Amino acid sequence: ADDVDGVREDTKLNFLRNVKCLGKLSYGLRPRDIRSVDPSLFLTNSMPSLVVREHAILLNLGSLRAIAMQERVLIFDYNRKGGKAFIDTLLPRLNPKNMNGGPCMPFMIEAVEAALLSRVQRLEQRLMYIEPRVQALLEVLPNRLTADILEQLRISKQTLVELSSRAGALRQMLLDLLEDPHEIRRICIMGRNCRLSKGNEDLECSVPLEKQIAEEEEEEIEMLLENYLQRCESCHGQSERLLDSAKEMEDSIAVNLSSRRLEVSRVELLLQVGTFCVAVGALVAGIFGMNLRSYLEEHVFAFWLTTAGIIVGAVVAFFLMYSYLRTRKIL
Amino acid sequence: ADDVDGVREDTKLNFLRNVKCLGKLSYGLRPRDIRSVDPSLFLTNSMPSLVVREHAILLNLGSLRAIAMQERVLIFDYNRKGGKAFIDTLLPRLNPKNMNGGPCMPFMIEAVEAALLSRVQRLEQRLMYIEPRVQALLEVLPNRLTADILEQLRISKQTLVELSSRAGALRQMLLDLLEDPHEIRRICIMGRNCRLSKGNEDLECSVPLEKQIAEEEEEEIEMLLENYLQRCESCHGQSERLLDSAKEMEDSIAVNLSSRRLEVSRVELLLQVGTFCVAVGALVAGIFGMNLRSYLEEHVFAFWLTTAGIIVGAVVAFFLMYSYLRTRKIL
Amino acid sequence: ADDVDGVREDTKLNFLRNVKCLGKLSYGLRPRDIRSVDPSLFLTNSMPSLVVREHAILLNLGSLRAIAMQERVLIFDYNRKGGKAFIDTLLPRLNPKNMNGGPCMPFMIEAVEAALLSRVQRLEQRLMYIEPRVQALLEVLPNRLTADILEQLRISKQTLVELSSRAGALRQMLLDLLEDPHEIRRICIMGRNCRLSKGNEDLECSVPLEKQIAEEEEEEIEMLLENYLQRCESCHGQSERLLDSAKEMEDSIAVNLSSRRLEVSRVELLLQVGTFCVAVGALVAGIFGMNLRSYLEEHVFAFWLTTAGIIVGAVVAFFLMYSYLRTRKIL
Amino acid sequence: ADDVDGVREDTKLNFLRNVKCLGKLSYGLRPRDIRSVDPSLFLTNSMPSLVVREHAILLNLGSLRAIAMQERVLIFDYNRKGGKAFIDTLLPRLNPKNMNGGPCMPFMIEAVEAALLSRVQRLEQRLMYIEPRVQALLEVLPNRLTADILEQLRISKQTLVELSSRAGALRQMLLDLLEDPHEIRRICIMGRNCRLSKGNEDLECSVPLEKQIAEEEEEEIEMLLENYLQRCESCHGQSERLLDSAKEMEDSIAVNLSSRRLEVSRVELLLQVGTFCVAVGALVAGIFGMNLRSYLEEHVFAFWLTTAGIIVGAVVAFFLMYSYLRTRKIL
Amino acid sequence: ADDVDGVREDTKLNFLRNVKCLGKLSYGLRPRDIRSVDPSLFLTNSMPSLVVREHAILLNLGSLRAIAMQERVLIFDYNRKGGKAFIDTLLPRLNPKNMNGGPCMPFMIEAVEAALLSRVQRLEQRLMYIEPRVQALLEVLPNRLTADILEQLRISKQTLVELSSRAGALRQMLLDLLEDPHEIRRICIMGRNCRLSKGNEDLECSVPLEKQIAEEEEEEIEMLLENYLQRCESCHGQSERLLDSAKEMEDSIAVNLSSRRLEVSRVELLLQVGTFCVAVGALVAGIFGMNLRSYLEEHVFAFWLTTAGIIVGAVVAFFLMYSYLRTRKIL
Repeated sequence: ADDVDGVREDTKLNFLRNVKCLGKLSYGLRPRDIRSVDPSLFLTNSMPSLVVREHAILLNLGSLRAIAMQERVLIFDYNRKGGKAFIDTLLPRLNPKNMNGGPCMPFMIEAVEAALLSRVQRLEQRLMYIEPRVQALLEVLPNRLTADILEQLRISKQTLVELSSRAGALRQMLLDLLEDPHEIRRICIMGRNCRLSKGNEDLECSVPLEKQIAEEEEEEIEMLLENYLQRCESCHGQSERLLDSAKEMEDSIAVNLSSRRLEVSRVELLLQVGTFCVAVGALVAGIFGMNLRSYLEEHVFAFWLTTAGIIVGAVVAFFLMYSYLRTRKIL
Repeated sequence: ADDVDGVREDTKLNFLRNVKCLGKLSYGLRPRDIRSVDPSLFLTNSMPSLVVREHAILLNLGSLRAIAMQERVLIFDYNRKGGKAFIDTLLPRLNPKNMNGGPCMPFMIEAVEAALLSRVQRLEQRLMYIEPRVQALLEVLPNRLTADILEQLRISKQTLVELSSRAGALRQMLLDLLEDPHEIRRICIMGRNCRLSKGNEDLECSVPLEKQIAEEEEEEIEMLLENYLQRCESCHGQSERLLDSAKEMEDSIAVNLSSRRLEVSRVELLLQVGTFCVAVGALVAGIFGMNLRSYLEEHVFAFWLTTAGIIVGAVVAFFLMYSYLRTRKIL
Repeated sequence: ADDVDGVREDTKLNFLRNVKCLGKLSYGLRPRDIRSVDPSLFLTNSMPSLVVREHAILLNLGSLRAIAMQERVLIFDYNRKGGKAFIDTLLPRLNPKNMNGGPCMPFMIEAVEAALLSRVQRLEQRLMYIEPRVQALLEVLPNRLTADILEQLRISKQTLVELSSRAGALRQMLLDLLEDPHEIRRICIMGRNCRLSKGNEDLECSVPLEKQIAEEEEEEIEMLLENYLQRCESCHGQSERLLDSAKEMEDSIAVNLSSRRLEVSRVELLLQVGTFCVAVGALVAGIFGMNLRSYLEEHVFAFWLTTAGIIVGAVVAFFLMYSYLRTRKIL
Repeated sequence: ADDVDGVREDTKLNFLRNVKCLGKLSYGLRPRDIRSVDPSLFLTNSMPSLVVREHAILLNLGSLRAIAMQERVLIFDYNRKGGKAFIDTLLPRLNPKNMNGGPCMPFMIEAVEAALLSRVQRLEQRLMYIEPRVQALLEVLPNRLTADILEQLRISKQTLVELSSRAGALRQMLLDLLEDPHEIRRICIMGRNCRLSKGNEDLECSVPLEKQIAEEEEEEIEMLLENYLQRCESCHGQSERLLDSAKEMEDSIAVNLSSRRLEVSRVELLLQVGTFCVAVGALVAGIFGMNLRSYLEEHVFAFWLTTAGIIVGAVVAFFLMYSYLRTRKIL
Repeated sequence: ADDVDGVREDTKLNFLRNVKCLGKLSYGLRPRDIRSVDPSLFLTNSMPSLVVREHAILLNLGSLRAIAMQERVLIFDYNRKGGKAFIDTLLPRLNPKNMNGGPCMPFMIEAVEAALLSRVQRLEQRLMYIEPRVQALLEVLPNRLTADILEQLRISKQTLVELSSRAGALRQMLLDLLEDPHEIRRICIMGRNCRLSKGNEDLECSVPLEKQIAEEEEEEIEMLLENYLQRCESCHGQSERLLDSAKEMEDSIAVNLSSRRLEVSRVELLLQVGTFCVAVGALVAGIFGMNLRSYLEEHVFAFWLTTAGIIVGAVVAFFLMYSYLRTRKIL
């Protein structure tokens, strides 16, 4: 098909540069649905979503945007990180040699699992990268409060905020999916000669065997989703815990700095009391140093008396002020 | 009809300056219902709401207040931003040329979709405007802490608080609507010869074909609402994430500033220790400068001994105080 | 009836000073129920509540405490604001002239609606009073940080905390009521010859017409409650938004002040560096001013050399310290 | 029975010092159940709980730990506050004279109600004690920021945190109980010849009259629990509101203090600018005061010119620096 | 079996160093399931989980990772704290002598209970360790604000954050399990000839007696889980309360420090006013001390007049500035 941007040897993977390449091949999807996976609208569809339509599952998981169909999967913007990770996860699964006896899942479900797996692994890798860094910071911090370490703490916090938000959004998507058995059943009947009955949401298949297979598949999908939900929750919980620790650390640092500034201020105050007393003494000495006649110039002991007066006065003033500030609990 | 304020060429749109223009044309609506879309009461009905009544849907979406009926839509306060955006979104949809084969929806649902679309787009535009600004601030901030940049951060935060609150309120409205299938069914049966049975909320139509159409329409409306819900959630989630980042940034800046102030205070303290020692030296020098007779005036070396005493004393005092403060971890 | 504290011309309103005036007229209410509307126990029943009993509805809405019965309403503590507002809202509704064709509701429901209306209006009035004040503060604040403006911000925040808490409690009460159809049905059957069947919560009336009326009334009450719920939510949402804005503003002010203090501290530090250098210079000058003989007194140029040494030394020391602090990023 | 620690005249109350006194009288309770009310394990069962077992209700309400049975109630650790308050509340209720015609409840339910009542009253008393204190603090605070008042605010906040947490835990316990009709029904059938049918949770009694009595009792218990729930919520809501107010007050005080410190710093800076200029002037004067020959000694007007230079220079320097800092918005 | 790492005398316990030792003995478990208890992936499965599969229960409780089967329990990484505590708790339970008449539970449920018990006890021990420390800190803190005490508060807070997060995760796991009766029933039917019917989740057993036993066991498991849930909630609630208290304390300390710094700053300002006035006086004295001729040298009283002028001027200037700062409320 020349309307797609590229086709690998395995014809099941189709790469599209953007949504326009879909052209008229809308595969029964409405423009509204396609917009929800359009990578160019990343601001309006930044929340992860997994939308089930009649013949396709639309996957929007961060930088991975794809449409999984029964026999093919369309990947938009395949050069971005999410798309590449998805392809790297999906390709080995399509190789029949790697099956080693496990249950053979339909292609579409393999694609969905590969998408979830690549996304969850991305989150886990980021967590594994950031976690030892934050732990090291928390160990080092109370004693080494340099601007550099504080900057590292800030950057780690920003990363954790984003990681926790992304893991939380993915977890919410999986929870919503698991709480809606209708959606999971719609995945199961795709490509089968079954339909959902209106009232009680039961499967109705033309062949009884197909119904049994579909029900087993439903259980399989639920376990699969629960597994990724657990991994997501671990990721989310761990990053929330680290973020909480980092925040509490920052609060404690703020109090610590405040208390140390108070210490510094008190010593400063003590020195200013001293400086003030010395300055008063210097003023007295300066006055006697004026080239004006005080008629004390020739008095014996005038020098020593004045000097003693200045020194004793300064020391007494200092201790008076010191004890006053002490009683008022300022020093 | 001359009781409305203006009628476009397309007679389906009616513009009203305020609720009083409705006059006696209450279209079976109670005063209480009309008050919920009255733009003059914007403080008491600031939450978005979509109220379904027997013959009309009352839309209150921020600055857009309208009543959608089967064949017409009444727009209040049509000169405000919300009203204009609504008209600009609705008019092309009424043009049959733009249909290009999509399913032909009833006029009322087109009006509701246009209202939701114009509102969601408004939120998305504001997010698209603010998002790069905040990202740029977060990049620049730790290094350039000018009053100007801090002011920009403050304004961005205020905008994000409002944006997140508005997107959250709209999202809540859509969630409440989607969780209440009764309301959606009431939209579907409007203008049809159907009714809802009391107990099990099933549709009962006089013509079986109509029932089928109504059920398909119900599914269509649900998908439509889910789509706008997803866009709203993306908007809300993105603005919450940015707001969280901005808050964490502000907390980190506060700690950063605190730590830098401590640095400055410690150097100040060091200087004050120095100044104090110099002041004591100056006091001694001043004392010897008094015009009083100390009988040391003519001693050889008195000058040099005193000078050495002053200088050595000041330096020794400085280092004693410095090492004391060092051991007490104040410096 | 002389057991009540006062009776208006319209005998339907009864005023009681306190719960004791109820005397033996307990109207089939248990002491426990009456305690929940007793205005003297305002600390233990501060949450708004609407309790439906067999023959009466007990209303506890802040400062309005009343018991609505089929033919009369008892108002406690009728001189307080809440009681007065209730009476002012209820009286016009009892006047048949004001009916202008609307559906004639039973007296008890009119009383409940009047109570809700008077309470919601009170909240809205307080919001309308505080909203422009907070907006004005938010506009003015970043530039005018006077103690007066900060105090106004503090008072507004305290008011918003209370308003938001009250609106939230009323909203919760309405939500609980709307989620419990059993309670609403119990209101409908009061005074009718109907009863609620145990299992499926259906109405059973002796006269079929009464059942239909009761069901219509039930729908009417639900719409009425939803309407007040919407107004309450608008009030709550708006006050929460304002409170969030005020809090973010305060956080930003704190960072702003912190950054300005750092600026001030850095200039102070610069000046202290200068003062220290000048003080050292003054010490040198003071030493040469001692009345001791340095044998330099008569040297030509000694004065000018020393002066140049002092000045050059001070300036060089200043720039050395300045550049050192600059490289350590303290200045 | 000599295995209990004490028996009052009214043999229905049994006092036990600790759980070991229960001895072999386990009354069909498992060790696990008994551990949940053991007062010596207060850290592992600090959450209030009301556990219904076949023949007993285990009450764990803070410092009150008791087992209510059909004919007796065992109270552990009866000397603690909670136990005493419980006994004081329960004893009057057992006196038939105080019944005054109200419905005669089974002893076990009287005991449960007494326990809840004594616990709720304890919370209300603490709230009534703390509420006027906090209100007074909030009035006084912005103007009188003494260490003493701040300390009182801190202690009130700690009390409110605890009160709100306790009231919230009790409220959650009551909510859980009310949302689980199964538990309430199990209380009702105790001592009756009834059993709960498996599927639809209906009562099945051997005597129809008993079924009716049990159903009425169920309704009575629900109303009773709802009443205590309301009191608990009032208590919780009021303490949360006070706590919020106190927190907002503290935040505002922090900003207030920050702004005042900035004010002080700016005046300090102004003085330091002045001091610096004076110091430079003093340096010049000191230089001329050196006992070195400047050959200006005998010049007429040298003194006055120099003096004028010093003063004018200092004043000009001051105003230059002042206006520079003014334009940079530091002063 | 030599594929396991070690076997105790009691062959029911099997110890495995890591998941690879499981080898081909996958016991019908999928790789995905085994990964959820793999201790080497502790970052991706840090959330506690209890997964029920057809023949095994996979336990992941922090540092305890085990697979409980009908006749054996596999423990991974048995040397870590969690594994050891589990073995110490489980072994006595397997000894028939310790049964003392209690109901004999299947081995698998004993293992699950031992796992939960060892985990909950670990949390409780940590809480019992930290609780008196935090209480002591809260008592001591407002008066003794040393760096050491602040550091202890910081460490306690970090411990409480982690403890609260772990207890909360375990509580959530137990809540999820209790809200899903399907899972509990699947535990009950393990090893029995029963199956769950699809629709109504009822048990279907080949032998009626087995059904009854299974149902009793179900009730037993529910009570068991509820008991551990209560202990978990106590632990979580208590640590949250302590953490809240510690946070409020830290906030109060911050305000306290801020207020004390303001006090210190104000005294500093006062001293600087004094120093400034003294410095001006010293400048005047210095000017008169210049070796320049002012022609006042020989005037009688010039000295005393000047001295009086300096002192009076300094004192007057001080009081002028002091009262000015007082009126501006800066001092």
